[in-house]
Amino acid sequence: MYKDLNTSVRTLMTPGPVEAEPRVLRAMCTPILGQFDPEFTEIMNETMAMIRSVFQTENQWAFPIDGTSRAGIEAVLGSIIEPGDRVLIPIYGRFGQLLTEIAERYGADVVNIETDWGQVFNPQVVIQEMQRVKPKIVAMVHGETSTGCMQPLQEIGAACRALDILFVVDAVATIGGTAVKVDEWKIDAAIGGTQKCLSVPSGMAPITFNARVEAILLERKKIERGLADPSTYQKLQTRVIRSNYFDLSQLMDYWSPARLNHHTEATSMLYALREGLRIVLEEGLTVRFARHKLHEQALVQGLKAMGLEIYGDPNCKLPVVTSIRIPAGIDGESVRHRLLQDFQIEIASSFGPLKGKIWRIGSMGYSCRKKNILHVLGALEAVLIRHGAKVYAGRAVQAALDVYDNIEV
Amino acid sequence: MYKDLNTSVRTLMTPGPVEAEPRVLRAMCTPILGQFDPEFTEIMNETMAMIRSVFQTENQWAFPIDGTSRAGIEAVLGSIIEPGDRVLIPIYGRFGQLLTEIAERYGADVVNIETDWGQVFNPQVVIQEMQRVKPKIVAMVHGETSTGCMQPLQEIGAACRALDILFVVDAVATIGGTAVKVDEWKIDAAIGGTQKCLSVPSGMAPITFNARVEAILLERKKIERGLADPSTYQKLQTRVIRSNYFDLSQLMDYWSPARLNHHTEATSMLYALREGLRIVLEEGLTVRFARHKLHEQALVQGLKAMGLEIYGDPNCKLPVVTSIRIPAGIDGESVRHRLLQDFQIEIASSFGPLKGKIWRIGSMGYSCRKKNILHVLGALEAVLIRHGAKVYAGRAVQAALDVYDNIEV
Repeated sequence: MYKDLNTSVRTLMTPGPVEAEPRVLRAMCTPILGQFDPEFTEIMNETMAMIRSVFQTENQWAFPIDGTSRAGIEAVLGSIIEPGDRVLIPIYGRFGQLLTEIAERYGADVVNIETDWGQVFNPQVVIQEMQRVKPKIVAMVHGETSTGCMQPLQEIGAACRALDILFVVDAVATIGGTAVKVDEWKIDAAIGGTQKCLSVPSGMAPITFNARVEAILLERKKIERGLADPSTYQKLQTRVIRSNYFDLSQLMDYWSPARLNHHTEATSMLYALREGLRIVLEEGLTVRFARHKLHEQALVQGLKAMGLEIYGDPNCKLPVVTSIRIPAGIDGESVRHRLLQDFQIEIASSFGPLKGKIWRIGSMGYSCRKKNILHVLGALEAVLIRHGAKVYAGRAVQAALDVYDNIEV
Repeated sequence: MYKDLNTSVRTLMTPGPVEAEPRVLRAMCTPILGQFDPEFTEIMNETMAMIRSVFQTENQWAFPIDGTSRAGIEAVLGSIIEPGDRVLIPIYGRFGQLLTEIAERYGADVVNIETDWGQVFNPQVVIQEMQRVKPKIVAMVHGETSTGCMQPLQEIGAACRALDILFVVDAVATIGGTAVKVDEWKIDAAIGGTQKCLSVPSGMAPITFNARVEAILLERKKIERGLADPSTYQKLQTRVIRSNYFDLSQLMDYWSPARLNHHTEATSMLYALREGLRIVLEEGLTVRFARHKLHEQALVQGLKAMGLEIYGDPNCKLPVVTSIRIPAGIDGESVRHRLLQDFQIEIASSFGPLKGKIWRIGSMGYSCRKKNILHVLGALEAVLIRHGAKVYAGRAVQAALDVYDNIEV
């Protein structure tokens, strides 16, 4: 009745999910181990160490949440925020709105500042607002995939530390593709995504947090019914974290030598994440980030040579996502449909005010390679011509090749 | 620095995670598709249909939560429960305590009744308590892996419906291993697990719920900031579901033709779940449940022939988990250690009052096969002899073979 799984092999050039590393897919075939098997806890410990490396942090706490990226965001925000806490969230795209949505659901008193989409904030604007609002937490998106912009974080982080404000960063789109310097930028908690620049399937969210966050978690900690000694069971821990699944204080016990039972770790996804992180560290962060910049440059030069306009302020461009204004009179969805059906390429549209206005091309992780960049440029040119758009035929791929021939070592 | 993933191949005879079906592991190697790719949304729809079949329901709503089993439980309870709601939770093991823990965190006024571990409830006792307490929800565990007992649900479900109480069932341990008749038993919402009788890795939780639950979800629904029309954005939806990630009203939009963006579906885990469900339906529920009973019988007869005592009331034994009293004077953890190190077999200990008192052997899904039953019986006998326990040497495997030779067709 139901057929064998037999999918097309797409070229995935969206801001995620992107193509998984072949080695990552193979790692998922590894037989299951029990979650307290010494071989498995060793894999857990290795994965923690590798998460620390990609976040460039010495934090003790670095582990994945068993859910997609927004699960990681909710685990961090929901474990820190207590009802009535003031949280400052500067918004420059859809995912700043998501941070706001999650924080509000956990009872935060959220203060937003907003800037035009396609821009980021001058750090001084955020710092002034911090001084005025005096929040407990500042939460920001590092790379806004909805617009293709990236917020500089270092000055804001330093100001948060000076003012004793917690700095929470959504690095879902940037981790593994461009630098996320948790310690140097004084980020107190960061959340990464797997299905973007790490090229691991969606379904886990690596996070890290420092002792400043840990102190709050320990104050809110409650041992679960069924694990606690009945005589000391704290039914009335009034500051308890609202979610059980996302309770970081419990997850600390699970990811420490105590190995206190919480969920059953997602075995195959952990194998995948470990392999994906191993590939990142084998390539080396510096080399990997330079590779992403190279392919971005080839893509951008190709798009410009075709006559297309890049959306957003180039001074804050996210290196792993390139947004393009859809030419006047062209049906953006029709172009995307033809790219998928005829060329097996997926690119993205966008959200809210940008819906129908821009396309977004991701160049992330394993999808970020010469073959894919050249294929997407050639295909997009062909489809645009097919739609009657005026483009400079033949130039896009040549411009990209110029970049590769001149720069590549 | 970090080596290739190269794990031992264990015989997993715990109550989960168990060995994954080889076809399931291979399905996870399938290349990634975009989450709104028509090929992927077809896979989503097929998986929904298969979830309905294993839950034996006509419910429209049947889809996985992207997290482990307790994520599914939290999604259901957290989406239904509003602060102050009265919830009756009868407890007969550790996972009834977990239901209580989660319900309390979402603000429920929980009323517990408890029975001795190793027993289940006389349905009339639960029904009398329902009549007295008048809860909005009764939440119960179907198969308690902590004790190895299974609660009959049909009478309780009928009474819930008659009294207009919602009946929520944790079927994590039973789905795919023994009947879970959602419609016939008048279960309003049920949660299954992947890493047990479905033999899919941990990391997803199939759930289903009916129109009675849907009505509550629609009353509490709030379109997310960033997706809502700004002019109608309902910041002050006071009954909003507290979690964003587990908000079933949003997940309904994601799993319906609207395909409203929520999380990025866990691609490879969905491939795995689809394949696991396909295998279950190919085998057929009736045949599959009979297979689990056959191997359980072989295991139980073998254990008894060895001279071991089965823990718990045999009238309510969970067919997929067998609990054994650890013989006096034997160190249960030492036996487990030797089984793992010498025989590559994992069996489980238990929690709370049963810690150090019983072992638990799972016979679930792909792990539930003749080779494994015979291997675990032979190995356990050998290890017990090695520990100086008095056992009837040589009889266990013979007793199991007697069951197979006499019953197997």
